[in-house]
Amino acid sequence: MPEPAASAEGSKPVRIGLLGRGTVGAAFSELLAERADAVEAATGRRVEIAGVLTRSEGDFESILEESDLVVELMGGTDPARDHVLEALRAGRPVVTANKQLLAQHGAELFAAAREAGVQLRFEAAVAGVIPIVRTIQESFGTTEISKVFGIVNGTTNFILTEMAATGAGYDEVLARAQKLGYAEADPSDDVSGADAAAKMAILARLAFHTPVTLSEVSYEGIEGIQPDDLAYAKELGLSLKLLGAAERRDGGISVRVFPCFLYPGHPLAPIEGPFNAVMVEAPAITEVTMSGPGAGGLQTASAVLGDVVSILAGEVPVHETRAELPLVADVTSSFYLYLEVADRPGVLARVATVLGDHEVSVKSVVQRGAEDDARLVMVVHECLESRFAAAVEALGELDDMRAPPRSIHVIEEEF
Amino acid sequence: MPEPAASAEGSKPVRIGLLGRGTVGAAFSELLAERADAVEAATGRRVEIAGVLTRSEGDFESILEESDLVVELMGGTDPARDHVLEALRAGRPVVTANKQLLAQHGAELFAAAREAGVQLRFEAAVAGVIPIVRTIQESFGTTEISKVFGIVNGTTNFILTEMAATGAGYDEVLARAQKLGYAEADPSDDVSGADAAAKMAILARLAFHTPVTLSEVSYEGIEGIQPDDLAYAKELGLSLKLLGAAERRDGGISVRVFPCFLYPGHPLAPIEGPFNAVMVEAPAITEVTMSGPGAGGLQTASAVLGDVVSILAGEVPVHETRAELPLVADVTSSFYLYLEVADRPGVLARVATVLGDHEVSVKSVVQRGAEDDARLVMVVHECLESRFAAAVEALGELDDMRAPPRSIHVIEEEF
Repeated sequence: MPEPAASAEGSKPVRIGLLGRGTVGAAFSELLAERADAVEAATGRRVEIAGVLTRSEGDFESILEESDLVVELMGGTDPARDHVLEALRAGRPVVTANKQLLAQHGAELFAAAREAGVQLRFEAAVAGVIPIVRTIQESFGTTEISKVFGIVNGTTNFILTEMAATGAGYDEVLARAQKLGYAEADPSDDVSGADAAAKMAILARLAFHTPVTLSEVSYEGIEGIQPDDLAYAKELGLSLKLLGAAERRDGGISVRVFPCFLYPGHPLAPIEGPFNAVMVEAPAITEVTMSGPGAGGLQTASAVLGDVVSILAGEVPVHETRAELPLVADVTSSFYLYLEVADRPGVLARVATVLGDHEVSVKSVVQRGAEDDARLVMVVHECLESRFAAAVEALGELDDMRAPPRSIHVIEEEF
Repeated sequence: MPEPAASAEGSKPVRIGLLGRGTVGAAFSELLAERADAVEAATGRRVEIAGVLTRSEGDFESILEESDLVVELMGGTDPARDHVLEALRAGRPVVTANKQLLAQHGAELFAAAREAGVQLRFEAAVAGVIPIVRTIQESFGTTEISKVFGIVNGTTNFILTEMAATGAGYDEVLARAQKLGYAEADPSDDVSGADAAAKMAILARLAFHTPVTLSEVSYEGIEGIQPDDLAYAKELGLSLKLLGAAERRDGGISVRVFPCFLYPGHPLAPIEGPFNAVMVEAPAITEVTMSGPGAGGLQTASAVLGDVVSILAGEVPVHETRAELPLVADVTSSFYLYLEVADRPGVLARVATVLGDHEVSVKSVVQRGAEDDARLVMVVHECLESRFAAAVEALGELDDMRAPPRSIHVIEEEF
């Protein structure tokens, strides 16, 4: 196994054996090259690809021989299972994004890692770039977790969000999702709940320290959801998610996947589109919710790289700053502007002229008269803060003002 | 420094020197005792308190002498700074929850930790139990982060949420927050934005690997917010937060705290009450948002314990399952029930009777007639799933049904 960063200065680069070069594999190769300097800064080690195994090219044995660390991104369980086992037994730490492999053969793989005394990491296998594996394992490693709820399949969340928003039927929305690349040509693993079940098996094992395999997780998909259900749910104030639930129940645990309505205010209720989110509950933490994009080659590759860096760094690095970025004082922002003005002709024109003179442009206005004074409330588009401040100062000098202008920042992006 | 878990079997317990026994210190002592077995299972080491330093009791030098690891929960910078420096220089890993200490003296402390080759961990210093420090440092340690936005002060978020919900003024809501224990008797550190600024200084350093201290963070509080602003904002579809923003801007970085309106759909917009949330953006991850309770003695103690365990575990543990919890198949759930029924007298009564016979109780109903058939849609309270399934089967046998009953899970909790 690679040596820890502290003793590694000037050492040979860490050689990575890459199994698989599909979307994620290719993205990982690229990201690794792009972030090589950052990896060296964080771990003290250079990294390079020792060899790549694809369906048609490369020889596993010789790649393994050449590698210090193996990254498995082939998917499926055959031959991924054999390769990962062999790598672990040969003393190589392994990083994988393969949820099926872990959900079906986790016990065997973890035992092999323990025996060899090497790490097996798999952040990318569950919920994309959301660091839920690390959080449950490390931050909450000794916490008595009572519940892990998750939206862990982006395809189905996209479909349910679209059905609710448009009133369209399942088949129509599925076709749209396929067109947009949010659903595969054969979507059955996603829409049946099987994909989410594999992820929940992994999370349940981590949360409850108890062996859980895919075959023990019951699941139900979204194929039977009718537009009517979503319409009525709206009347009841509910939103529909494909929920993965792993909970302590009646002295045991329950691990399941099923479509589920949530009341507004539930931490998972606002999660829309192809996003994932996971909520963890425990008496000592109350609840923590984490959300982010469910998948994407680059995002998955990023989670894989995080695991690689953790293995190389060993202990957490001790905060050497490595940049000296200047603090920029004057930046651009969007603002809310509140003006109490005399209610007389031409006020809006005079205000608009001052704003225009300072190149501040208005996005929306609410005007309201109240006896002999009025309130002029608006949101202005992003501009340099110094310029906005000058405009506000000039506005304050107008005779029309009944009180000093008031402003508050606005984040203009609409999501 | 304690040895890694792998070689520690049968070793002496790890002795913790605890500095401070306020709310968090007391909660930490208790949690440590309660979770001792879990800590041993995760790290291979027993833990015990070597000694406690309070304002009136204990001697720092002799506690340090007796300790393998120091936990600093005194708050303030004097004498916390001297004690932490001395502990690090004596080769003791340190865990602290002290945001002021890190925001003001981070550079010096991190340098001391590096020199001694020991860890300095501080998850509890920012955003309570949300593992944002670990996430930025480890998961995203080599990611080119472009932006960290956060609601990192629970007191001000509670006040702004209440002002928006009730229309009440700042002073009135502050008094209510003090009564409920969400604001301190002297709330100035919170409401001025100073507390949030310290946290953003810490996050900016981690995210951008560049030295940032509290004095470089500009901040603005919520004392000037008027009920009127919140009323107009509602018309414009905006919600108000005290936002901490650390971003790359114009080749440098900008780190600030200010009240800010957000459009609905922004990941931080749904965060209400005394909660915290942090959003991280980077090209390789898109965005990840994490939310949870902002503070509380037990929650903070839990974050401290997570850091202690990370130090003891060294590398991440290799997944020994340590429980054999049974999988429970029949659990209680709440359901949405969709019935297509003939529109004739007595249907609702017959349906209600069947449900009552199975001890399934109705929470809410939507009934709608449509020519000669009608839809009866309801949500039922939590009951054993087997019992609900039996009720649905019995409903299916009623002559009134025009189609098989359809049901979907509901999470009943309203937050």
